[in-house]
Amino acid sequence: MSALKPLILVSNDDGITAPGIRNLVAVASKLGRVVVVAPDGPQSGMGHAITIGNTLRLNPVDIFDGIEAYECSGTPADCVKLAKREVLGGNAPDLVVSGINHGSNSSISVLYSGTMSAAIEAGIEGIPAIGFSLCDYGHNADFTHILPFVEQIISEALQSGIPPGVTMNANFPAASKGPIKGIKICRQARAKWQEEFDKRLDPRGREYYWMVGSFVNLDKGEDTDEWALANGYASLVPCTYDLTAYAAMPFLNEKWQLAR
Amino acid sequence: MSALKPLILVSNDDGITAPGIRNLVAVASKLGRVVVVAPDGPQSGMGHAITIGNTLRLNPVDIFDGIEAYECSGTPADCVKLAKREVLGGNAPDLVVSGINHGSNSSISVLYSGTMSAAIEAGIEGIPAIGFSLCDYGHNADFTHILPFVEQIISEALQSGIPPGVTMNANFPAASKGPIKGIKICRQARAKWQEEFDKRLDPRGREYYWMVGSFVNLDKGEDTDEWALANGYASLVPCTYDLTAYAAMPFLNEKWQLAR
Repeated sequence: MSALKPLILVSNDDGITAPGIRNLVAVASKLGRVVVVAPDGPQSGMGHAITIGNTLRLNPVDIFDGIEAYECSGTPADCVKLAKREVLGGNAPDLVVSGINHGSNSSISVLYSGTMSAAIEAGIEGIPAIGFSLCDYGHNADFTHILPFVEQIISEALQSGIPPGVTMNANFPAASKGPIKGIKICRQARAKWQEEFDKRLDPRGREYYWMVGSFVNLDKGEDTDEWALANGYASLVPCTYDLTAYAAMPFLNEKWQLAR
Repeated sequence: MSALKPLILVSNDDGITAPGIRNLVAVASKLGRVVVVAPDGPQSGMGHAITIGNTLRLNPVDIFDGIEAYECSGTPADCVKLAKREVLGGNAPDLVVSGINHGSNSSISVLYSGTMSAAIEAGIEGIPAIGFSLCDYGHNADFTHILPFVEQIISEALQSGIPPGVTMNANFPAASKGPIKGIKICRQARAKWQEEFDKRLDPRGREYYWMVGSFVNLDKGEDTDEWALANGYASLVPCTYDLTAYAAMPFLNEKWQLAR
């Protein structure tokens, strides 16, 4: 293996045995030297959680045809932190890729996404990073139609670069929607999850809930990730970790009466 | 209790028995009708995690002198979702307040913060919301010096309003730093956590890790939350849930060679 090949760290949130990460490792291996550090079980919906009140385990596994890989007991963000400090000895990889997630992480779901938190964690560290998600929650989802596009995006990230502090959120329509028409650079659609709770009784007669919800797109824009995905395109949203709502500052400075 | 009083939902991430939420309930009760829905145990560092692969419990508790309160087995974001759907019957409260957190949630910590995720979850729903944090991790932290400022901020949020979709992140210096000089509207400082991992051996001789880290401020700006806190002021950062890095779009559209 050439020492000139870029070092690509691969993680995810569905767990290290998920088909999605196997597909991503296969693509990344064509473009660089790959190291995998991923959760030892499902961590979907973990958002940007980190493990601070508990301990972490990190164990080598040999499930990727000889590629260096470790399973971690923590969250996706933990995986990236541990990878950098303990696996790579404090050296930053050239690129972090996360996924391929079994399910959409478009629009507002970026906030809940463990897949994207691994990528954004790298972004905070100044490492170029991309999260990949397929809009198909099935464990046996078909990834073949998106792999050439995943390869193209990784290749562009390595060759053209990603602006400092920016993390890319790539989502792809499910195979059932037909061939991917192309890739659109998009903004995050304004949307929300409309939650419902399925209330049940446990065997001891006590109430518990399952969260169920439906996605509600509130955004009619044709420059959004939701529009791209609904129209057969892959969506690519550049994301920042600076949550400051700059547009709100004049209002607050003028209207809020505060002891300054 | 007057029906005209605004309805204020209170949550946190340190758990419903933490001193910080008791202080926040006391202040909020002066300004509105309060309902508490908070985690049944510590959920620090949970980021915007939600519970999708497991069930949720929600049980009434009577620990706030007759104020309606529920403990929830889920994350802070779960608490807000359950509160709206199940406790308030689908009706939005007039304001959501979260905290007062035992520890800073300034700068980049907003991403890891369960306190802020409860508030941002409300923001996504279009509900005005504020997260409050004291830069003192102690369980017995002194909150008295910040309570008049917490009251002023809640009062302004109710009277002057918060722009739609914006969520406020309020942080306060510890009591040991002296009286609060005032409140500054700030942007999120550019910073990161420099993690170290304390590697140990368990009683069976196997390795495990504790994450430890130090905060590194990379931002010399005097308009940041870190500057305000370091100089004796409370910081108030308006936050958005739109992560789109708009400034990166021209570069990507020009430089990235993609199948469009």
